[in-house]
Amino acid sequence: MPTRTVFFVSDGTGITAETFGNSILKQFSIQPRHVRMPFIDTVEKAHQVVEEINRTAESEGRKPIVFTTLVNEEVLSIVKNGCKGLVLDMFMTFVEPLEAEFGMKSNHRVGRFSDIARSQEYNNRIEAINFALAHDDGQSAKNLEEADVILVGVSRSGKTPTSLYLAMQHGVKAANYPLIPEDFERNCLPSALVPHKAKCFGLSIAPERLAEIRNSRRPGSRYASLENCRYEVAAAEALMRREGISWLSSTHRSIEEIATTILRDIRPDRLVY
Amino acid sequence: MPTRTVFFVSDGTGITAETFGNSILKQFSIQPRHVRMPFIDTVEKAHQVVEEINRTAESEGRKPIVFTTLVNEEVLSIVKNGCKGLVLDMFMTFVEPLEAEFGMKSNHRVGRFSDIARSQEYNNRIEAINFALAHDDGQSAKNLEEADVILVGVSRSGKTPTSLYLAMQHGVKAANYPLIPEDFERNCLPSALVPHKAKCFGLSIAPERLAEIRNSRRPGSRYASLENCRYEVAAAEALMRREGISWLSSTHRSIEEIATTILRDIRPDRLVY
Repeated sequence: MPTRTVFFVSDGTGITAETFGNSILKQFSIQPRHVRMPFIDTVEKAHQVVEEINRTAESEGRKPIVFTTLVNEEVLSIVKNGCKGLVLDMFMTFVEPLEAEFGMKSNHRVGRFSDIARSQEYNNRIEAINFALAHDDGQSAKNLEEADVILVGVSRSGKTPTSLYLAMQHGVKAANYPLIPEDFERNCLPSALVPHKAKCFGLSIAPERLAEIRNSRRPGSRYASLENCRYEVAAAEALMRREGISWLSSTHRSIEEIATTILRDIRPDRLVY
Repeated sequence: MPTRTVFFVSDGTGITAETFGNSILKQFSIQPRHVRMPFIDTVEKAHQVVEEINRTAESEGRKPIVFTTLVNEEVLSIVKNGCKGLVLDMFMTFVEPLEAEFGMKSNHRVGRFSDIARSQEYNNRIEAINFALAHDDGQSAKNLEEADVILVGVSRSGKTPTSLYLAMQHGVKAANYPLIPEDFERNCLPSALVPHKAKCFGLSIAPERLAEIRNSRRPGSRYASLENCRYEVAAAEALMRREGISWLSSTHRSIEEIATTILRDIRPDRLVY
């Protein structure tokens, strides 16, 4: 297949544009080359972008695809009018109908993130990340009352990445607490969790998948054996069922899907978008 | 200001749509109410969405804004044709010109993430998160040769959230290693870093901001004092300058901006989008 290049041109980081552009490109059976061009915020840089796109167009003999989220009108018009690519303007395409519907002009403010580092929303995210790290794997039962959600489940069921994602993406304070063989023998929740049962959310996993994950870390151990994984998963599910803790299986779900499902369930008041 | 509701309707998690939609809404001086409607993947659910949007339109007396990333044509047409909102279709708007340019139909595959949990790309992300956690704050000098980048800087300069973000968003293996007063006294890099100097990247921070952050964790300590922060930052920058390690200031930058700048600098081969 001949090469096709996709440019992501943004005044800011371009991360949102690239993530979104990618989910659209995945609808096609092509494997384009990606070029990210962040922080394009001057006329001079815009001209450099146009040059690079046009050089690519020439050498590949086909139109590059150009996703832009440029907010500055002058910069945008240089790219739009000067380049020989297919320009998909992810900004004005939606801003125009919104201006009409709201009956107001948009403020064309560059850099969604420029002043964000000091904002309350941003501080909440950082605080939530620190909280997730301090409360990873049942490390601390302190301040569990501050948690928006406490993820429970057997070791390696996906609790850690999910709690970090909830913090990073949504500013949600997620602790996580493992369910271990001692809990199954005693046949009750770890005592630190009892007062917070209402905000516990369980992760389960298919024993076969769990054994695979554990084996890659501790090959051949009893911990990783399919027999032990079967026992732990069954015991954890029985415990959660008895305690009335809802859970989902992480086996075929991405972190994003798990996080979305949890948020729908717990509906925290404070949510960062 | 009268209420205005914004719906995010998606067959999947809707996270990308929501993040992107938000950066567009932030261009307007309005504070809309957000309603996320993930996993809308059946005709039945589509009709429920239409009902809820139309109920909202009625009770608020103004058109709700409806961002959709629906891939299924039947589901999309129910929402598009049935609802009384302003529908902004973030999927077909860009898919159509791409179909024309590529000369092929898109595959309209629902659920960018559905099978992702077992994919190589997904496993790389999880592995990178585990790597970042195991190599947080200089905890381990083991396997540093596997790192794509090693973030260095004084305590609380932003290394941990940045390394987790690089892992989570891009599948980049980022270790982080603190520069501490002992290093400044010895006047050289921690010995574990010496063989990996080429992939070190520094974070610095304004001493005033550092003192603020440290004071919120250890109020009134010498560690948090402005004088000590000034000393540590100046010493760390002198050390990095002498060792030829490039750095940036995290003071006015978001995690996303820091990560984007680092990626532009280190250009790792393996990048998850």
